[in-house]
Amino acid sequence: MNEGSFLSSLARRSSDPAISWLMKLTLDQPHLISLAAGFTDNETLPVAEVSELIAGLEHDDAAARAALQYGSTAGDAELRQLTLDRVCAQDGIAPGAALTADDVVITNGSQQLLYLLSEVLCDPGDIVLVEDPTYFVYLGICEALGIEATPVRLEPDGISPDDLKRTLQRLMDNGTLDRLKFVYLVTYFQNPTGWTSSFEKKREAFAILRHYEAAAGHPIFVLEDAAYRDLRFAGPDTPSLKSLDTTNERVAYSNTYTKPFATGIKVGYGVLPRSLMRHVLRSKGNHDFGSANFNQCLIARALRTGVYDQHLPKMHAGYRRRKELMGGALRKYFPSSAKWQEANGGLYFWPELPAQHDTSRDGAIFRAALDAGVLYVPGDLCFANSPLRPRPKNCMRLSFGGTPSSQIEEGIKRLGTVLRAQGL
Amino acid sequence: MNEGSFLSSLARRSSDPAISWLMKLTLDQPHLISLAAGFTDNETLPVAEVSELIAGLEHDDAAARAALQYGSTAGDAELRQLTLDRVCAQDGIAPGAALTADDVVITNGSQQLLYLLSEVLCDPGDIVLVEDPTYFVYLGICEALGIEATPVRLEPDGISPDDLKRTLQRLMDNGTLDRLKFVYLVTYFQNPTGWTSSFEKKREAFAILRHYEAAAGHPIFVLEDAAYRDLRFAGPDTPSLKSLDTTNERVAYSNTYTKPFATGIKVGYGVLPRSLMRHVLRSKGNHDFGSANFNQCLIARALRTGVYDQHLPKMHAGYRRRKELMGGALRKYFPSSAKWQEANGGLYFWPELPAQHDTSRDGAIFRAALDAGVLYVPGDLCFANSPLRPRPKNCMRLSFGGTPSSQIEEGIKRLGTVLRAQGL
Repeated sequence: MNEGSFLSSLARRSSDPAISWLMKLTLDQPHLISLAAGFTDNETLPVAEVSELIAGLEHDDAAARAALQYGSTAGDAELRQLTLDRVCAQDGIAPGAALTADDVVITNGSQQLLYLLSEVLCDPGDIVLVEDPTYFVYLGICEALGIEATPVRLEPDGISPDDLKRTLQRLMDNGTLDRLKFVYLVTYFQNPTGWTSSFEKKREAFAILRHYEAAAGHPIFVLEDAAYRDLRFAGPDTPSLKSLDTTNERVAYSNTYTKPFATGIKVGYGVLPRSLMRHVLRSKGNHDFGSANFNQCLIARALRTGVYDQHLPKMHAGYRRRKELMGGALRKYFPSSAKWQEANGGLYFWPELPAQHDTSRDGAIFRAALDAGVLYVPGDLCFANSPLRPRPKNCMRLSFGGTPSSQIEEGIKRLGTVLRAQGL
Repeated sequence: MNEGSFLSSLARRSSDPAISWLMKLTLDQPHLISLAAGFTDNETLPVAEVSELIAGLEHDDAAARAALQYGSTAGDAELRQLTLDRVCAQDGIAPGAALTADDVVITNGSQQLLYLLSEVLCDPGDIVLVEDPTYFVYLGICEALGIEATPVRLEPDGISPDDLKRTLQRLMDNGTLDRLKFVYLVTYFQNPTGWTSSFEKKREAFAILRHYEAAAGHPIFVLEDAAYRDLRFAGPDTPSLKSLDTTNERVAYSNTYTKPFATGIKVGYGVLPRSLMRHVLRSKGNHDFGSANFNQCLIARALRTGVYDQHLPKMHAGYRRRKELMGGALRKYFPSSAKWQEANGGLYFWPELPAQHDTSRDGAIFRAALDAGVLYVPGDLCFANSPLRPRPKNCMRLSFGGTPSSQIEEGIKRLGTVLRAQGL
C-alpha cells in the first residue's frame, strides 16, 4: 500500500515553505540574530489600546454580544463601510455607484485574499504575472495551485513597462495569453525589495494590460497587494492602482489593518470588482464562512474611536528608528560593492551583491552567516522560475521589523564581516 | 469578450450556498421568526468572562505582546498542548508516542479543517463518503472541489454498517474504490439530525473501512467532525473514533472551542495522522500562515484559568432550556404524523414528515411557512445527490440555538399551523 498515493495533485505540487526551515533554524539556534522574520515590531504593540477597546466593548452589552456571535461571510457591515470610506479617502475616490461597502470583503489577514482570488481565477496551467522578485509566500500559492508564475522585471519605481509588454507579446505569440488571469503587484514597500511603485508606472501597466485584453479574450485583472502601504513613516502616499479602476472592473485591492497595528489580531480586507466578489464569497463560505467576528468588531471600534489612527504615528516612529539603525549599520559594515535602496516605510532592506556572490541556502555566504550567528532570507527564494533567466542568487532580504533594536547593529556587523571574509 | 470565461473550474463548479438565500430572507423580512440559523445562544455568551481574560492578559505585558504578534502556522504551542491534553482526557487516551502536541493544528473554526483536508486529499472526481443526511456546508465544499459526495445511510445511532459495506463493495465492483479518500462523519449531535453515533457503530465502521483498504490501494481516512460534542447538556459522553485509531494513522479529528463558548472568537482544532499533518500545514501556510494568535492566546488562557470549563455548564443549562421549550412546542403543535428524536445536546431538531409532503424551497410548505412568518432549513439541502435514490424532501432542520427563547414556542406554533393546513 502506497502511503503517499492518497494525496491530491495540489498536495503533491506543494512543498514545505521556506519559512519552515528558516523558523526551524531560529528555534534550533536560539543565540542566532534573525534578520529573516517578517515579524512586526514588538516594542510598539498597542497593548493598552487593545485593553481599552475591549473595556469599551464590555460596557456596551449589545455590542459585546454581537462581537462574540457569528458574523457573515463578507464581514461586519460597519467595518466594511469604514473600510470603504478609508480606501476612498486614501485614494481620493468618491464612494458611490462604482464602489460601495458591498465591494468590500474582510479576510483572515490579506494573505487569505491572495489565496481565494487565485483559487477562483486559476486552474493548473494558468498564468499569473508576478514581479521579479516577488513575495515568496505567493510563489508557494502558485506552486500549490499549479499556476505558472511568470516574472516581469521590477524596477525601484515599479514594474517595467517594456518588460511587461514583451512578456504579454510573448504570451500572445505562443498562444497562451488566454491563460493569463491576473497580474500580482505588491505596490508599496514591496516584500522583499522595500520598493514602491510610482503612480506613473501603475498607470502605464494598467493601460498596457487593457490593451492586451482583446487578445486574451477575457479581462486581465490586477491583484494589488498594498499590505505595507500603511507602514509609510515618511514622505507622501501614492494613489493605488484601484484609483485608476474607476468602474471597479479590473483591480482587486488588498490590504490589512493589523500589520501596522497588531498582527496577532489578523484582519485583512479586499476591495473587489463585482464580477469577482460573488465567487470569492462562495469560496470563503467554504473556507470558514467568515473571519472571526470579535476581531472585526475590535478593529471597527479602533477605527471609530480614533485609537487606530492615533497608534499609527507611534508605530511609524518605531519603524523609522529601526530602519535608521539598520541603514546606518549597513553603511558602516557592508562592503561598498553591495548596493541597496533606502525606503520610507515597510520592513525590508534588499542588498544586492556583485553577481558572482551566492547568498542562497546552499551557498558559502548563508552557511558562514549561520556560523557567525545571523540569519537572513536568501534572495533567490523570491524569484519565480523562468526559462528566460537563471534565478538571481546575489540578493538578501533583511528585515528590521521583528529584530530587537538592540540586535540590529550587531546582526549587520556579523553579516558584514561574513561578506568581507568572502572577498567582497 | 466573455466576462465569465476567466473563472477557474473550482469557481465554475461552485454555487451560492443555501445559507445566502436563507439569510437574505431573514434580512428582507425582519418580522420572520428564524428557526433556520445554526447560530449559538446569545443569552449565555461569556461577556464578563472574556473581559476578565483580557484584563488578565493586560496585566502580563509579555503575554499581551505575544498575543498581539504573529504566531506560527500550526498554532500557539500552549494551546496545542492543552488541546492534546483535553482530547486525550475526554477519550481516555494516554498522550505519548502515538499522539503529541505536534499532531494538533489550530484552525479558523473547525470549518477550515474540513476544507484543508478535502483540498490536500481530493482531486476532482475523487470520492468522499458522507452521512445521509449530512452537514450541508460540507456538500458545498465537495461541489467546489469536484468531489463526489457519496451518501451512506445514517441511523439515529450512527452510520449503517450494512449500507457502508454495500457502498464500499459497489465502489470496488465498479472500479472506483481507489478514488475513495475518506469518510466524513459528524458523530455528535449531528448537523442536521441532532443524532449521536454510538461507540459500537463507530467501531464497526472503522473495522469495515480497514477491511477495504487493501482493495483501495491506500489508506481510507475518517474525518470525524466533533463540532457539537461539547454541546452535550445531559447524559454520558461517547468516545471518539479517534480513540480507536491507537497509532494515529487514520482518523482526522476536528472540534472547536468557540461553538460552546463564543462563536465570534472562532478557534477550532484538528488532531491529525502524521501522514496528513505536513500537507495540511503546507496548505494552511498558503491560506493564512496561521490563525489569529490573539484568539488562540485568549482560549489558552480560558482553558488554563478554568474560565472555559466554568462556562460550559451555564451554556449547557441555556441550551437545555431552549431544547425543552422547542421539544414541548413540537409535541403541542406538530401533527402526530411528524416524527423526531430528542437529543441531549447540539442545536437541532429534525422532524420527518410522511414521504409525500414536500418541505423544499419550492414546495408549498416552505412558502406557506414564509407567509406565516417562520423560516426553517429545508431538509433536502442536507442530502447529497445520488443516482441510487431521489433526495428526500420530507424533513426540516429546526434550530433552537440562535432563536430568542421568547420566540421558540411561537415559531413552532406557526409551523404546526402551516403543517395542519397542508393536510398533515
